[in-house]
Amino acid sequence: MSGGDVVQLRVRYPEVDRMGVAHHANHFIWFEIGRTELMRARGVTYRRLEDDGIFLPVIEASCAYHAPARYDDLLRVRTRIEGATAVRITFEYRVESEADGRLLATGTTRHASVDRDGRPRRLPARFQELLA
Amino acid sequence: MSGGDVVQLRVRYPEVDRMGVAHHANHFIWFEIGRTELMRARGVTYRRLEDDGIFLPVIEASCAYHAPARYDDLLRVRTRIEGATAVRITFEYRVESEADGRLLATGTTRHASVDRDGRPRRLPARFQELLA
Amino acid sequence: MSGGDVVQLRVRYPEVDRMGVAHHANHFIWFEIGRTELMRARGVTYRRLEDDGIFLPVIEASCAYHAPARYDDLLRVRTRIEGATAVRITFEYRVESEADGRLLATGTTRHASVDRDGRPRRLPARFQELLA
Amino acid sequence: MSGGDVVQLRVRYPEVDRMGVAHHANHFIWFEIGRTELMRARGVTYRRLEDDGIFLPVIEASCAYHAPARYDDLLRVRTRIEGATAVRITFEYRVESEADGRLLATGTTRHASVDRDGRPRRLPARFQELLA
Repeated sequence: MSGGDVVQLRVRYPEVDRMGVAHHANHFIWFEIGRTELMRARGVTYRRLEDDGIFLPVIEASCAYHAPARYDDLLRVRTRIEGATAVRITFEYRVESEADGRLLATGTTRHASVDRDGRPRRLPARFQELLA
Repeated sequence: MSGGDVVQLRVRYPEVDRMGVAHHANHFIWFEIGRTELMRARGVTYRRLEDDGIFLPVIEASCAYHAPARYDDLLRVRTRIEGATAVRITFEYRVESEADGRLLATGTTRHASVDRDGRPRRLPARFQELLA
Repeated sequence: MSGGDVVQLRVRYPEVDRMGVAHHANHFIWFEIGRTELMRARGVTYRRLEDDGIFLPVIEASCAYHAPARYDDLLRVRTRIEGATAVRITFEYRVESEADGRLLATGTTRHASVDRDGRPRRLPARFQELLA
Repeated sequence: MSGGDVVQLRVRYPEVDRMGVAHHANHFIWFEIGRTELMRARGVTYRRLEDDGIFLPVIEASCAYHAPARYDDLLRVRTRIEGATAVRITFEYRVESEADGRLLATGTTRHASVDRDGRPRRLPARFQELLA
């Protein structure tokens, strides 16, 4: 997996709950950082995409939690594009411990490509190519 | 669906992103409020459960997003127990608009019953009965 | 202090950190709920204000933490308007335990009244009256 | 200001609100990252401190917001210790735009040194030296 597809993160204090482990909702935020950096590495800045009127809201999200992430742990998020059409993109994620490579979580998000008003909008061909 | 299984929530300002809609990670926090109140209505306070050394970490979570929730919208979260064994519980959720009853999202969380150190621990029989 | 100026909240699971108490950043979110409901009680919906092109970004915020709020605790947020001009509003907050009335935190936020582009914009006279 | 006292951060999507700018509560989370890394650079890991039974809860926090931080912006958080005694530490923060060095926010947090039960506990001399 190439450079931009792996992001390093450190678990933040408020991300951890009273069990001492990262709360399960944060994984979806880490996934988002993963796909943002994957896109950036391929030349597609998500911020720029939105400025151009293209939005990629999540239509389905799932995560399986294999082992806990703890406060201050360094994590690796590996992201890949599982599939993309003109109006749909699916990303897959693996969250691993940076210390020992252990798999902590796996997940998927499916996205629609829509305009500012939520109507389907085809991704421009150049984006489709970059993300293919 | 009886009283405690429906919770009303209002979408908070920081829960909304620059698309003007609730960020998809928040639904998992709303689900958590849903199951906490379902359990409370049945006489099982989750806080009490943890004080007794029983934890219910999420081992799988998923959500399908049907329509956006917007800032200041009143929502209803309907929660039901899909199934429970001595060491596993699965909850199902529906998030609806309080204004017009429209379905905004559906989701599922699976939980393991573990002790403070993450080892499997059977739910006491009285909890299993309350949650059955 | 009249009805709309007191809001009841329950401390959410992800708001609590590994010390077992609500993380200090959450108090600013509770303050926001306090002023939103104070405004609503006076007939000024903040969502409506923004739809009319008036924004009230925070320019200063502070909080003193007197005692911890714990997971699942019921809290009361008391909000009052400390002062308001055509282009500035200051709110004051007290967070109390619902169980025993103990003071948990006090805080202040100062807000500018601006348009969508961040330029100063006078609050309409009717809002100034409602919030006086 | 030396290396560990400056941290680079990128504004995350869910940190941004419908005004398109980072919600004001996030600055306190960025401050926390700032002081965590300052401490780490000086050889005091906050996680380790807590494992040793020393906690540094925030007793006062304040922030002045000078200019908005936007989605995907790179920020610099500069942290310095304003003063420290055996049972109190005060940190000061400056948040700047990485792109043009513009000052976005300044803030302060005061912390007590306590044990697991919230009772005052003197910082070990070696920590006082490292943090002096």
